[in-house]
Amino acid sequence: MTELQSMGARALSASKILATASEHTKNAALQAISQALLDNMEDILSANKQDVDAARAGGMNPSMLDRLTLTGQRVESIAKAVLKVAALPDPVGETLSETTLPNGLSVQKIRVPMGVIGIIYEARPNVTVDSAVLCLKAGSSAFLRGGKETINSNMALESIMRRAVASVGLPEDCIQLLHDTSRATAQEMMRLRGYIDVLIPRGGAGLIASVVENASVPVIETGTGVCHVYVDADADIEKAVNIIYNAKTQRTSVCNAAETLLVHKDIAADFLPLAQSRLQEKNVELRCDKKAMKILTNVTAAEPSDFGREFLDYILAVKVVDSTDEAIEHILRHNTKHSDCIVTENKQTAARFCAAVDSAVVYVNASTRFTDGEEMGFGAEIGISTQKLHARGPMGLREICSYKYIVRGDGQVR
Amino acid sequence: MTELQSMGARALSASKILATASEHTKNAALQAISQALLDNMEDILSANKQDVDAARAGGMNPSMLDRLTLTGQRVESIAKAVLKVAALPDPVGETLSETTLPNGLSVQKIRVPMGVIGIIYEARPNVTVDSAVLCLKAGSSAFLRGGKETINSNMALESIMRRAVASVGLPEDCIQLLHDTSRATAQEMMRLRGYIDVLIPRGGAGLIASVVENASVPVIETGTGVCHVYVDADADIEKAVNIIYNAKTQRTSVCNAAETLLVHKDIAADFLPLAQSRLQEKNVELRCDKKAMKILTNVTAAEPSDFGREFLDYILAVKVVDSTDEAIEHILRHNTKHSDCIVTENKQTAARFCAAVDSAVVYVNASTRFTDGEEMGFGAEIGISTQKLHARGPMGLREICSYKYIVRGDGQVR
Repeated sequence: MTELQSMGARALSASKILATASEHTKNAALQAISQALLDNMEDILSANKQDVDAARAGGMNPSMLDRLTLTGQRVESIAKAVLKVAALPDPVGETLSETTLPNGLSVQKIRVPMGVIGIIYEARPNVTVDSAVLCLKAGSSAFLRGGKETINSNMALESIMRRAVASVGLPEDCIQLLHDTSRATAQEMMRLRGYIDVLIPRGGAGLIASVVENASVPVIETGTGVCHVYVDADADIEKAVNIIYNAKTQRTSVCNAAETLLVHKDIAADFLPLAQSRLQEKNVELRCDKKAMKILTNVTAAEPSDFGREFLDYILAVKVVDSTDEAIEHILRHNTKHSDCIVTENKQTAARFCAAVDSAVVYVNASTRFTDGEEMGFGAEIGISTQKLHARGPMGLREICSYKYIVRGDGQVR
Repeated sequence: MTELQSMGARALSASKILATASEHTKNAALQAISQALLDNMEDILSANKQDVDAARAGGMNPSMLDRLTLTGQRVESIAKAVLKVAALPDPVGETLSETTLPNGLSVQKIRVPMGVIGIIYEARPNVTVDSAVLCLKAGSSAFLRGGKETINSNMALESIMRRAVASVGLPEDCIQLLHDTSRATAQEMMRLRGYIDVLIPRGGAGLIASVVENASVPVIETGTGVCHVYVDADADIEKAVNIIYNAKTQRTSVCNAAETLLVHKDIAADFLPLAQSRLQEKNVELRCDKKAMKILTNVTAAEPSDFGREFLDYILAVKVVDSTDEAIEHILRHNTKHSDCIVTENKQTAARFCAAVDSAVVYVNASTRFTDGEEMGFGAEIGISTQKLHARGPMGLREICSYKYIVRGDGQVR
């Protein structure tokens, strides 16, 4: 048995106990974790300082450095988020359906924990706590692999959380972190069949591609978002300006931010100058196709590769289309099945768009920024799925569970 | 673009049309397929004869040869099964939930087609029709790869189905079969990301392992079943004898047949001789642990590897356990998360078993042979999932669909 297999075996054993733990016990564990984070603040910050110092010496860029850095306030808000998860309803054990077959067999479908959930992520120590507590509440063991830049912070957090879990009588092995952050170990983790029931990568496109390419355990692909806002001929222009401004600029580094604006030709001359002037408040660079260039000044000509590109920055690709069908075709060709929006007052056009656009979340007259577990009422999320298997869009507690059937009879045979 | 990518692109285009096709049109396509199978019986049988002759010349074993062989009657029953799928309710478009958020956004979750479903299978030509029509009814394109032994039969069936689909105005590319049955092409199919939304292997353990190992598209693992029947101290002995007899012998070659019998020590001396005498009607070989050997005569001593083995034959591993906990532990260690059964009149013991045994279907007092889409009321199935992601147990039309959210607003922004 390799070291990883034995970690996996411990995670599996722990998951069997956790699977039948009461909601009360799981919540007690989360409360203990939250309190322990506050009580051990100094240890956490000093471990984090080691990571930050090393990263700064290694020349990490400021935005990554910021994600890596913990402060007293940030730890407090992590601890508060744990309590929010404790307050969410327990997803485990809910009866999803119940039927009686003609032969008298009763078939009950109930939600059960996934078992062992693997999470591979990058330089954000808050993900360590966040992932572990969501898994715990959903009755599954968390098998975590963070980036090497954040290993000291993560080890401190792991140790604090494990002690807290043990303090309420649950197995500490329901939270385990890979201490070896080598690439080889990550690869082995991706192939730990029989121990890991699902692997969720949380991070940039490169990480996700590597997991999808190498994993033999089932994966839920998350993340990349090339979101479109299509302003239809029948759009309310004021709504459209507000929506594209919000979807592009409220936070640019996230997967549910808009990256491409499509505009119907009949409304382009009225709408585009107003949108441009609003977007200029945040100095958004517009990369325009030829038709949009004819309407706007002080813009950049778009390269073909700007369409379908996830800028994650104050940059927006802009294209004028001849019809809703052209907009739909463009979206189907260039999106990442994440979130796409139509702005229109025409219900039939909206219905056609909703039926044809194959994204996790399709919007009519609202910002794509709402694709988020908290915003959509799930309470929390472990990521946003961009695949069609298992879960789509924000994944909350229910989405990281599985189900099983219980069939009760009185001696029935075939 | 490789040939496979261009097949994938055609499947994808067809899936977009199919996704919004009406139930009426999809059913018309299925009826046309059913009729075309009957109308083209001679072509089908003569193509199949080529396959059967080649297989026989190549020394294929009789049971595989039987699976490969089509007869007039078999084609008729395939055609009839297509009509049964047409009669099932359309899974697409159903509203799964609907909520209004505090900010006024309406969030609707609806069932949508998966898109393109890949199926890799072995020498059973009926799977070609069966898979294609289930996918079509569920609004998805079928991208099929059958075994090389059955290529002539499959090509005949593909061509007949494609013409039938086109005859009702749907794109024929929603059904495509790989004509090149080389291993390399199968491997390329397993990695056809961007074109195949899910890949379902249907066949033996070797095929499934190869798909899981090599695929980079999402996979639903199916099939292998090491099913257990546990006869508790509080079992009704007559029910227990009937259940193990049925679960072991009604059909031995299937994944929901029982492979291991566990018996509580307090009932073993009463139960085992009765079970043995009933199982002798079908000459079932019992491979017994030491404790069972002390009770029974004319049995074989079990090797350790007999526990957890999928015999798919008239062979049953038998073990006497000291407690329900020992039975549960044994099952958790040796099962394949398929179907496991407890026979008991004690409701508390049953509840404990159901909570602890992590299988797709857990039975109380009924044969494991009921793990089947038709038996469980799904109408039909494309396979039985043994993984915990996406779907568990029998997969009917709903289980090969995905969902999406439609969010309607009035200009909401964050």
